[in-house]
Amino acid sequence: MPHPPVTFSYPDWVDDVVGDWDRRYAADADKMRLAVALSRVNVERGTGGPFGAAVFERDTGRLVSVGMNSVVRFNNCTLHAEMVAFMTAQQRVARFSLAGDGLPVHELVTSCEPCAMCLGATLWSGVKRVIYGAAREDASRLKFEEGPVFPASYQYLEARGITIVRAVLREEAREVLELYRRSSGTIYNG
Amino acid sequence: MPHPPVTFSYPDWVDDVVGDWDRRYAADADKMRLAVALSRVNVERGTGGPFGAAVFERDTGRLVSVGMNSVVRFNNCTLHAEMVAFMTAQQRVARFSLAGDGLPVHELVTSCEPCAMCLGATLWSGVKRVIYGAAREDASRLKFEEGPVFPASYQYLEARGITIVRAVLREEAREVLELYRRSSGTIYNG
Repeated sequence: MPHPPVTFSYPDWVDDVVGDWDRRYAADADKMRLAVALSRVNVERGTGGPFGAAVFERDTGRLVSVGMNSVVRFNNCTLHAEMVAFMTAQQRVARFSLAGDGLPVHELVTSCEPCAMCLGATLWSGVKRVIYGAAREDASRLKFEEGPVFPASYQYLEARGITIVRAVLREEAREVLELYRRSSGTIYNG
Repeated sequence: MPHPPVTFSYPDWVDDVVGDWDRRYAADADKMRLAVALSRVNVERGTGGPFGAAVFERDTGRLVSVGMNSVVRFNNCTLHAEMVAFMTAQQRVARFSLAGDGLPVHELVTSCEPCAMCLGATLWSGVKRVIYGAAREDASRLKFEEGPVFPASYQYLEARGITIVRAVLREEAREVLELYRRSSGTIYNG
């Protein structure tokens, strides 16, 4: 039986949204603006759900990778924005952990609070800081489920040295969820 | 900037272990024997961690996909055995959910209790039954972390119609963890 490889890639608009890949991002809000822009264009171009993410080097503000929900485009339930950002970051640095020896500290910026799968992957990814925009409640209002995430889940990550920063540009991130609702996008895990 | 696709595939020994892809699997123990065999050969051939999985059609016992830990081989922290099985099953049926309209009921069989990421993905995968072999404690003894999984996490899945079957061929599955420890395999999320 043939076993074709599983594969995915960024949509063709990604460089239009990112612009200069060598730009340094200073404030958390600058980083979040990119994640939200990715979520918005993903909806506008019909390439996926209303979620965007990016991985940065924490101290230099250098962009390492981006992510956008790609579940429907590739028939792959795991391709949430955060997962796409983790996988493409690890491919870029050619390591299975962003906390590997000799690597700078990495962080994840995501337009919406991570679901249970993405929060678990956060631990394995090696990022040491997570910044999110819209909250679980904002996504639930659209009937997007977040899965089994509890206060203890965050405590578990924090106990392992991961800092969580909440509600950065929440309103801007929430607006994209609303845009998706109005455009009647597929709720692929409702 | 170039954006090469992210890709992964089964190791070349997979058909030797599976044998007849059209075989029907009757009992849970038969299905688990395949998951454990995949975990063992993955260690013996040096292609990944000591974890194997498979997705079946629940009622016919037809094999849909297999998975083996592939984190180190592809520099990709998300490629746990369960995730590989979900992604290749969804590629095979060409749907982002195994619970899509018109599809038979699917189940996941995994040689070890799923981590937080894989348990979250279980919800999005569309499988309605999870059968695991070795327990969290067996993996922790090897310093493999399972992440933020709580009794409430399982209750969350069960409340959404997912049945959990525990400790099938636990001893056989645990032995492969031991084999990996003795062969001093990389603990990629210790």
